[in-house]
Amino acid sequence: MTSGFFSSRWVQRPAHVAELPGGLPQGFRAAGVACGLKQDGALDLGLLVSDAPQTTSAARFTRSGVAAAPVELCRERCDLAHLRAVVANSGNANAATGVPGLEAAGATQIAASRLTGADPAGIAIGSTGVIGVQLPVDRVLDGMAAAYEQLRPDGDADFADAIRTTDAFPKRASLEVQLPSGTVRLSAQCKGAGMIQPNFATMLCFVQTDAQLDPETADLLLGVTVKRSFDRISVDGQLSTNDMAVLMCSGASGVRVEPESPEELQLGEALDALLRQLALLIVADGEGAKRIARVVVRGGDGERVERAARAVANSPLVKTALHGGDPNWGRVAQAVGGALLDAPLHLDIAVEGVQVCAGGALLAFDAHALEQAFARDEVEYAIGLPGEGAETEVFFSDLSHQYVSINADYTT
Amino acid sequence: MTSGFFSSRWVQRPAHVAELPGGLPQGFRAAGVACGLKQDGALDLGLLVSDAPQTTSAARFTRSGVAAAPVELCRERCDLAHLRAVVANSGNANAATGVPGLEAAGATQIAASRLTGADPAGIAIGSTGVIGVQLPVDRVLDGMAAAYEQLRPDGDADFADAIRTTDAFPKRASLEVQLPSGTVRLSAQCKGAGMIQPNFATMLCFVQTDAQLDPETADLLLGVTVKRSFDRISVDGQLSTNDMAVLMCSGASGVRVEPESPEELQLGEALDALLRQLALLIVADGEGAKRIARVVVRGGDGERVERAARAVANSPLVKTALHGGDPNWGRVAQAVGGALLDAPLHLDIAVEGVQVCAGGALLAFDAHALEQAFARDEVEYAIGLPGEGAETEVFFSDLSHQYVSINADYTT
Repeated sequence: MTSGFFSSRWVQRPAHVAELPGGLPQGFRAAGVACGLKQDGALDLGLLVSDAPQTTSAARFTRSGVAAAPVELCRERCDLAHLRAVVANSGNANAATGVPGLEAAGATQIAASRLTGADPAGIAIGSTGVIGVQLPVDRVLDGMAAAYEQLRPDGDADFADAIRTTDAFPKRASLEVQLPSGTVRLSAQCKGAGMIQPNFATMLCFVQTDAQLDPETADLLLGVTVKRSFDRISVDGQLSTNDMAVLMCSGASGVRVEPESPEELQLGEALDALLRQLALLIVADGEGAKRIARVVVRGGDGERVERAARAVANSPLVKTALHGGDPNWGRVAQAVGGALLDAPLHLDIAVEGVQVCAGGALLAFDAHALEQAFARDEVEYAIGLPGEGAETEVFFSDLSHQYVSINADYTT
Repeated sequence: MTSGFFSSRWVQRPAHVAELPGGLPQGFRAAGVACGLKQDGALDLGLLVSDAPQTTSAARFTRSGVAAAPVELCRERCDLAHLRAVVANSGNANAATGVPGLEAAGATQIAASRLTGADPAGIAIGSTGVIGVQLPVDRVLDGMAAAYEQLRPDGDADFADAIRTTDAFPKRASLEVQLPSGTVRLSAQCKGAGMIQPNFATMLCFVQTDAQLDPETADLLLGVTVKRSFDRISVDGQLSTNDMAVLMCSGASGVRVEPESPEELQLGEALDALLRQLALLIVADGEGAKRIARVVVRGGDGERVERAARAVANSPLVKTALHGGDPNWGRVAQAVGGALLDAPLHLDIAVEGVQVCAGGALLAFDAHALEQAFARDEVEYAIGLPGEGAETEVFFSDLSHQYVSINADYTT
């Protein structure tokens, strides 16, 4: 067992969860190939299939008003409770591509159905990459045929590589989860580094288990855990056109997870830790990111704590100060004030446990100690608004020169 | 007459307006001194007075929930229709400073009243600089006494210098305005480069005229023109704690501007051109900015066009692409989709007059011609949402490495 995956102080590995070096749960096979969407010849097409006809599933998608063609296709033509396979490409988002884009996604779905023998409604399509360029569908179809030949139980690594865009490192994990009635496996592959501010989900994330779940149970677990993970992070405040999270359950372990059972609770805990750590890896791999932060806002109104937390997480002034290792808490106050207008706020602010502002006014504090605490890789801001009862958190990355370099030169 | 001030294609100099090299309208004197708030010894305290007891005025302030002490003071203790003087410092925002901050602003007001002989309620206080550090009020009071000795009719240049923070260049203008009943002068000094996203006003802007206006007329003209200028720009989407715009009218020219008269219309046109060009200078001086842009959104719903325009103007992906000279219109679509959720949008997008997307799908266009057009200093995006009747615009700057450098190292 490696201890590599659960690396953040903000996520605890549950005691009944162990890390595996890799591999998919029973019933799943995957592959990743290069089909020519990326100019540098890197892997850019992933195929993941469940060989179990009884597979159940759940999915979440971006709420963007300009959702990409594959997202529209999944919503309109898939049976999201019974997905059997996923085809996901990087290098082209197939977004703002109109009818030809929908046709390309549809042709991919039909071809995957013919290859795998699954119903077309059981094939989910995901894309990520540049927006506003037609998808070269012939390359996708040729690549998919090649990927089908290479499907294997430890294909998760190649699959994870094939869905990367500006990600500096692949994001995946394979876990063994002890449930009261038996052992199951849980794995996930995800990608995302920029254009990250989820509403339901963010980026592409594919999760597999060989536990046996009803679709309603899968939907409940995915919904709750996505809200606590991908929905709580921001790299640049930008909701993507292509966000997608899919959970597939092959049932091949024979371990049944009934609603409201200890199995459901413990699988939920494992899934929660898995997705929260993946979400934090996305933040840590935020384009150009050097340092990540958590902002916790407490107060008397759920909508106001949410707005305050988002405003801090997306403030370029807070993010550049974080990058510079500068505990400039005045910018935190400014960001909250810009989000909650008109009525005077008497904020409390603590940075890494050091109270710097109470009732809206600065306090005397040890600036040197604060700077030292602030120099760590993970920084925590705590903000108190008037009242009690509501609380939220957002994880975010800093804003660096490299973010600008990456994004000033992405397409041309 | 120089042709230097009205430099943007988005602002026309009205035919009845001429530029002057500098100087204040009749009745005004100003000065700027170094009082030790800035560590580098640069000018950091400005004083501006009207010698005319009949001076009328109007003001607008930030809507931030953590408004700075001087803003609170102006709102609560000033007669905003009859301001006689302004004391403005840079180097310290006097924000998040609690009761001591209010006391410092109050002491400055009282001292300025004693120096100038004006009522305390006639003294406006403005501050800009770092948030969350107590203002060294002794330095301000000493500096103000020195500035009082140096007041002069052409002190506007020093005053404008004294209110700069990260501004790369001072922003001021002196204009001569021909009205049907006589000639008046109009001048303004403003500052702002970061923390710019106005609601009413943004940054500090002080405007003077020797025309004779009722306070209601001054308030109407300032309100309308601020909405069309500072309220339409964004550098980094960050509403400041200290924004303030003040118009003062000495009446010393003897030219009366009656409500709903030709004089009011023409003075309004001059003020409008003045404030719009100043706002564009703030955008052009956006921290690290190389290129500025205008986004125009048209559609059937005022609130939705506003949200779409703000989302584009504040998108770090759009802003980095603008910086890189990359007409990556897919990011424009993404930003609009992220602001207008759930219902599919069929966007029209044009960049520099080149239609790139219609009904949500890309069009064939001359990519080389678009890149050439996009390489200019000023770039225009036009976005069409469903419906007709509503339209708005926002001016914004790009996001550069230099923005990161400036803001990663600002306080410590």
